[in-house]
Amino acid sequence: MFEELEKAIKNRVNISESELTEMYRHFTPKKIRKKQLLLEEGDICNRVAFVEKGALFSYSTDEKGGIHIMQFAFEGWWMSDLFSFFTNEPSKLCIEALEDSEVLLISKEKHAELLQKMPVFESYMRQLYQNAYVSLQRRMEETIGLSAEEKYSRFLNGPFSGLLSRVPQHLIASYLGITPETLSRVRRQFAS
Amino acid sequence: MFEELEKAIKNRVNISESELTEMYRHFTPKKIRKKQLLLEEGDICNRVAFVEKGALFSYSTDEKGGIHIMQFAFEGWWMSDLFSFFTNEPSKLCIEALEDSEVLLISKEKHAELLQKMPVFESYMRQLYQNAYVSLQRRMEETIGLSAEEKYSRFLNGPFSGLLSRVPQHLIASYLGITPETLSRVRRQFAS
Repeated sequence: MFEELEKAIKNRVNISESELTEMYRHFTPKKIRKKQLLLEEGDICNRVAFVEKGALFSYSTDEKGGIHIMQFAFEGWWMSDLFSFFTNEPSKLCIEALEDSEVLLISKEKHAELLQKMPVFESYMRQLYQNAYVSLQRRMEETIGLSAEEKYSRFLNGPFSGLLSRVPQHLIASYLGITPETLSRVRRQFAS
Repeated sequence: MFEELEKAIKNRVNISESELTEMYRHFTPKKIRKKQLLLEEGDICNRVAFVEKGALFSYSTDEKGGIHIMQFAFEGWWMSDLFSFFTNEPSKLCIEALEDSEVLLISKEKHAELLQKMPVFESYMRQLYQNAYVSLQRRMEETIGLSAEEKYSRFLNGPFSGLLSRVPQHLIASYLGITPETLSRVRRQFAS
């Protein structure tokens, strides 16, 4: 049930078994089927999800109905709309299951409780946000400064390498901020 | 010397005067003149800057010599290339003084030292990264999903409102990922 979470946490901090057990008490497991939404645009995001199995993705929708992928999350990754989570503003994002998935949810209250009573959780979260910021910064740099070819090349070698077969092409195009046609052209270039 | 830093920290955590004094010991003050670089592309970013006075901005340069603004930082804000800082990879960014500025620098070693020995600094940093992530997420959403008009409108009402007169128009355009011509058109629309 908590295998991936245990791995993810032990990867960053020294934590005792009793602290782990205490931490798990704050999470609620949930199964979610492919295409089901974990968060709808306009709702306030009041929980964070950890992916034990499967995959999620978050996206915004523009006025023309186009979708813009913010993030993918596979096993061992966290997913939320942290903007809405921390500001209590309605979310501009949807979070949807890319595959049948199993997630661990932690509510805002439980999250705050853990931060307050467990310094090791604060330390883990500091490292997590730090890394999330760094990844997002790199993504932002790529989005504003790179050509379609460079974006795709980085994508192939980034944290998603090895997971690409699980993501439909039109979602990869949306993540990279290019059209599916451009993506096809770039992929042909890379294949030749 | 540490007025803005004191404000920024007390704004987020409860900290004693002796802890503050101890914390300050880890920072080195530096004056930097307008147009001087605090970080050059290709160098490893091994420090974080806190702006006591003035303003900095970070940017990447593309193959055609165009610049893409990542971030502005005014009094009370932090500035670094956290990607390079945490990964030890050469930076893809420059950090430049927008105005004559006074900054407080903390090295990677001192930063790690503070995190380890001062839980209140860890707590502050967790909140800082959390908020930095949230701001960057909102910026990413805006970059990939909004029209030039919407971007400018958000910019006017965002954290830079009140500071806009200190930023040249071509840097605002670069920050928004639009051409200076588009920015002029949008500004005329907003003015009319």
